Amino acid sequence: MPLMKSWVASANSAETPFPLNNLPYGVFSRAGEDPRCGVAIGDMILDMAALEAAGLIALDAEAVFDLPFWNQVMELAPEVWAKLRGHLHAMLVDGSGDQATIAPYLVPQADAQLHMPFMVSEYTDFYAGRQHAQNMGAILRGSPDLPANWLHIPIGYNGRASSVVVSGTQINRPNGQTKAPDADMPSFGPSKRLDIELEIGAIVGTPSEFGAPVTVDQADAMIFGFVLLNDWSARDIQAWEYQPLGPFQGKAFGTSISPWIVTKAALEPFRVPTPACEKALLPYLDGTIDGLYDIALEVLMQPEGAAKPTSICKTNAKRLYYSAAEQLCHHASGGCGMNAGDLLGSGTISGPEKSEFGSLMELSWAGRAPFTLDTGEIRTFIEDNDTLILRGAALGDGYQIGFGTCTGKIRPAVKFPA
Amino acid sequence: MPLMKSWVASANSAETPFPLNNLPYGVFSRAGEDPRCGVAIGDMILDMAALEAAGLIALDAEAVFDLPFWNQVMELAPEVWAKLRGHLHAMLVDGSGDQATIAPYLVPQADAQLHMPFMVSEYTDFYAGRQHAQNMGAILRGSPDLPANWLHIPIGYNGRASSVVVSGTQINRPNGQTKAPDADMPSFGPSKRLDIELEIGAIVGTPSEFGAPVTVDQADAMIFGFVLLNDWSARDIQAWEYQPLGPFQGKAFGTSISPWIVTKAALEPFRVPTPACEKALLPYLDGTIDGLYDIALEVLMQPEGAAKPTSICKTNAKRLYYSAAEQLCHHASGGCGMNAGDLLGSGTISGPEKSEFGSLMELSWAGRAPFTLDTGEIRTFIEDNDTLILRGAALGDGYQIGFGTCTGKIRPAVKFPA
Repeated sequence: MPLMKSWVASANSAETPFPLNNLPYGVFSRAGEDPRCGVAIGDMILDMAALEAAGLIALDAEAVFDLPFWNQVMELAPEVWAKLRGHLHAMLVDGSGDQATIAPYLVPQADAQLHMPFMVSEYTDFYAGRQHAQNMGAILRGSPDLPANWLHIPIGYNGRASSVVVSGTQINRPNGQTKAPDADMPSFGPSKRLDIELEIGAIVGTPSEFGAPVTVDQADAMIFGFVLLNDWSARDIQAWEYQPLGPFQGKAFGTSISPWIVTKAALEPFRVPTPACEKALLPYLDGTIDGLYDIALEVLMQPEGAAKPTSICKTNAKRLYYSAAEQLCHHASGGCGMNAGDLLGSGTISGPEKSEFGSLMELSWAGRAPFTLDTGEIRTFIEDNDTLILRGAALGDGYQIGFGTCTGKIRPAVKFPA
Repeated sequence: MPLMKSWVASANSAETPFPLNNLPYGVFSRAGEDPRCGVAIGDMILDMAALEAAGLIALDAEAVFDLPFWNQVMELAPEVWAKLRGHLHAMLVDGSGDQATIAPYLVPQADAQLHMPFMVSEYTDFYAGRQHAQNMGAILRGSPDLPANWLHIPIGYNGRASSVVVSGTQINRPNGQTKAPDADMPSFGPSKRLDIELEIGAIVGTPSEFGAPVTVDQADAMIFGFVLLNDWSARDIQAWEYQPLGPFQGKAFGTSISPWIVTKAALEPFRVPTPACEKALLPYLDGTIDGLYDIALEVLMQPEGAAKPTSICKTNAKRLYYSAAEQLCHHASGGCGMNAGDLLGSGTISGPEKSEFGSLMELSWAGRAPFTLDTGEIRTFIEDNDTLILRGAALGDGYQIGFGTCTGKIRPAVKFPA
């Protein structure tokens, strides 16, 4: 599929993350305004709340866009999602008769602040990156062998929804309990092994019923869209706490997402199959769809005062072993009800080369192999006032489906107890 | 403190769970009505929405009781909680001048259906029962030794809020992946080791800020009230899935809570200290409050067709090692923001004697020691159409602060895949 041209000139560049092919959904405001729904097109935002108020778009009897989240739209079912995308395309396509009517509803992105694009109902984090799982095994257990269940279960755990924040939100270095292997007692203080995890987040749009499982194909149809996701991780806190019930405070101090929900529809041309299974999956995980996406991903690190960030990882979302649809099917397989706004992290995405490792744990091999930034500074884990940046885009023929950036700056830990 | 007498005659019995000393909060409806907030008194419910509509009680400029949850009240701060309790006491106390005015707003409990009393924002399950942790070690690892971190961390994991249901909701036996130790491959089907966990749930009322920890004393002040909680568990699913990221589908098919929120204020006379620490807790977990409560607990099991249930466990909430306030302090210690409606499960409560074990895993010692019900039926784990019942009450001088019951019947698994 080629670039689809819009009368919004900035949307027709090969470099814009937001051509007419994309049309991602966010929540924005200008100074003094209430946050509301908008759609990115080139370097502009289409003010959906204002369009709705003017009677130029109506999805439902009630207002669904004059809200600081897209959850109401998600709940209107996939047919309505398709109808909305059709309306937006017709309004914004080059040669549209609506241009004069619609143009006044465009707001420059440069003037807008972006907010959380949806209310996170619950947050689940998976572990679907095979290279990452093997690297973690090699680092932590001395063997790249996968856990016994890894090739059978799309392993996941429940994360903390209240910790999910939009790109740009600063994160406090967490305090927590840690214990050195040779120490008698644990101690409490700022994490010394603060890390990122490069992930894609899938957003559930259509709910499922409590007690009722869904197939992989049904699960795929339930997904509304995707964001970049940085699952900030305190490795030293996690190491001491995680047996026997899994990660808790090591993952609860912040999870950053990119501000634009890239719809599943926009990513359709970039679907790729999951890799051949080393062991056949159980039949309940069978599906007919290509569940992964070819999305180029990059991680950059920028110390305080550096003129520009250093690229430290380049990989691709197609490196995953399990798809979001398989994860969602497994999630509901015992009867767990899923809701609009549920966020599913893919798990850390790493490729086979070191340049493709999606966490500092892997890039510095647990601190044993420090790396050098363009500024000459040395890093193993994150230092105070470092900024971490995730970027992602599906690369089409003369256009891209971009996610925008997912950034976060680490502030020094707060003093606790006082 | 003795029984406080009410003009509602049924509230003055030593047997009622709901004397004037209690005043728990629930959500109810009669046939054809919308669910709304009510307060239990004896065998009646005070219709708070109707009282508010009549101008007889006002906590806020907006209606807070004509809603199917108590979250709005929780968010009004502890001073308002105290004011509400004072108003209710004054209205319902024996000799109150309000009797004639208030009496028309009482609804018989026998006519009402009870609903979820609050919206669960997020659900966290802890592991604070020492005897339970030792029993599980003995059963699963052949040693009652606690995990290395157990005496230092109030261990918890994030559960699934969408799986929390009110007492009386039937639960489907979950399908899931399991693998016998000697099997080559896992299989998918109905759990064969379906269990309960006897717990107390603490409900957060006052939020904490993202990035900001709270002390144990602050955490105690944030707690709004308590419910009985049955953390249904599929032991075979859990055993295969839980390494390395903790329980997931083994715990996601249902968590039942009792329908009345017993306020922290009602339980004040029953506070008891946590037991002496075997190892000193780190200073961030220091507090000045007595964080546990003396609450008698019982579990009963009733097979389909049995005239009455068999009591299978009697224990007490004071058997816990960590308090809800300590758990909440730990939960927020890395900066995790807490919200009104967050539900914290205590962890399974077991005492030292077999008659005090709060799960079937312990009562049947992983199925090796079947037990006999009053009907003569034998059990290890739960069979289809069995009903499990939790009961709890703090026993005062001639009165009790009861929770009502927390019941659930297990239905056969759904067929999946079709």
